[in-house]
Amino acid sequence: MNIYKEQINLTSHGGTPSFFNITDSVKEAIKKSKIQNGICVVVSPHTTCSVFFEEFVHDYTEDGDEFLQVDLNNVLQKIIPDNVAQGQYNYPGEKHYEAVESWPNAEDYLPNGDRSALFNCDAHLKSTLLGSSQILEVDEGKLGVGKTGYVYFVDFDRTRSRSRKCRVIILGE
Amino acid sequence: MNIYKEQINLTSHGGTPSFFNITDSVKEAIKKSKIQNGICVVVSPHTTCSVFFEEFVHDYTEDGDEFLQVDLNNVLQKIIPDNVAQGQYNYPGEKHYEAVESWPNAEDYLPNGDRSALFNCDAHLKSTLLGSSQILEVDEGKLGVGKTGYVYFVDFDRTRSRSRKCRVIILGE
Amino acid sequence: MNIYKEQINLTSHGGTPSFFNITDSVKEAIKKSKIQNGICVVVSPHTTCSVFFEEFVHDYTEDGDEFLQVDLNNVLQKIIPDNVAQGQYNYPGEKHYEAVESWPNAEDYLPNGDRSALFNCDAHLKSTLLGSSQILEVDEGKLGVGKTGYVYFVDFDRTRSRSRKCRVIILGE
Repeated sequence: MNIYKEQINLTSHGGTPSFFNITDSVKEAIKKSKIQNGICVVVSPHTTCSVFFEEFVHDYTEDGDEFLQVDLNNVLQKIIPDNVAQGQYNYPGEKHYEAVESWPNAEDYLPNGDRSALFNCDAHLKSTLLGSSQILEVDEGKLGVGKTGYVYFVDFDRTRSRSRKCRVIILGE
Repeated sequence: MNIYKEQINLTSHGGTPSFFNITDSVKEAIKKSKIQNGICVVVSPHTTCSVFFEEFVHDYTEDGDEFLQVDLNNVLQKIIPDNVAQGQYNYPGEKHYEAVESWPNAEDYLPNGDRSALFNCDAHLKSTLLGSSQILEVDEGKLGVGKTGYVYFVDFDRTRSRSRKCRVIILGE
Repeated sequence: MNIYKEQINLTSHGGTPSFFNITDSVKEAIKKSKIQNGICVVVSPHTTCSVFFEEFVHDYTEDGDEFLQVDLNNVLQKIIPDNVAQGQYNYPGEKHYEAVESWPNAEDYLPNGDRSALFNCDAHLKSTLLGSSQILEVDEGKLGVGKTGYVYFVDFDRTRSRSRKCRVIILGE
């Protein structure tokens, strides 16, 4: 049994959720791993991001999002509206602001001390619902999905552009 | 460390979501694998299907669905109603129809060229929310769940009957 | 490739969903495993419980729940309200009551024969939506998450206090 790892580096755009089709990168990692049979785990280490398995569709909105991505977000919005003001959700609370402000790298989380950078409660809840990882099969050296199966990474955080990483871990023989 | 794989073949009935209790098949695969300790990954390679872990209940609706399955679908319907008409969701869009119509096996996706066969946006979104896989423990040669824990496969696609496969991958020693 | 397992024992409080920050226990298990690279699978064998990945926040409600936990439950309540009366959901049905009442350990599920102990349909559905497991990376002997990433176990069952177990399985080398 062998293990192979790779990192996919992504930059979210902010404003709206950032969706990334990472299927080619995942397939490339499997190829490089030389693993023929096993599992491929795709994980986000960030708490506002998810990895999910979905059909690739050929229509895009003006924002560049695929139709199924927009439909997914519209559905989630019904119960988790965008966090645009303090008090809309319990989070973020006063003690959390104070804790983050005390961190040595506070500027990374609260640029220019602007507390609205933590108005991302919706992103945390959406990513919890969807899950932060996806587990797929590696079958005869290939990603075990059908013709229409693709792997997506999403950062639901709309507050600003962020550097994100996605980890691919392949276990098998 | 060893790896063992098995495929469960299923046929969805269309009309409503198709639920399958696959617990016995998963337990049989673990037995055949002779693996004593590790993990059991149950994966759908289809983008309208999910694998989930739930209690087995003893009451059925007239359609043959277990009560918790119907309750689950009722809850999902609140935010993801059945896709019964064009324009209800963004998906399916014109370019996607054209792409699918250009595939050599277009008939598999659009029988008789009927575009309503792609009115399954609800199924895509429901399966994304629930997730396409389930990871369970293998403990002393057995599925590591309690007395009431069962494994289900669901195809949310209501548009027609489909042949579906579910992959079981066991890793351990 | 090696495998290491550990069990985290928890006691839910009933009344409201019980959330547990199990991050330290998971990190301790990774340390004990001596595994440097691989995956860490955290699984609930119970059908009303979930394992999820979320930010740790520093504000608590009067009930002792973290703000993001309460926000998560509020969001889920919109589509899955507390099961407080018979007939609100299909589950629990008559045949299921009869089956549970016939089990040798029926008292564990229906203390004092009180059928309202099965008014936990909401808990079953919430845990199905969130998923019963979480898969994380083990990277250079450490849990592969960022500064703000934590692992939580939740029992959504509000009917009474229960003994719960959470399984941690680490695979790697």
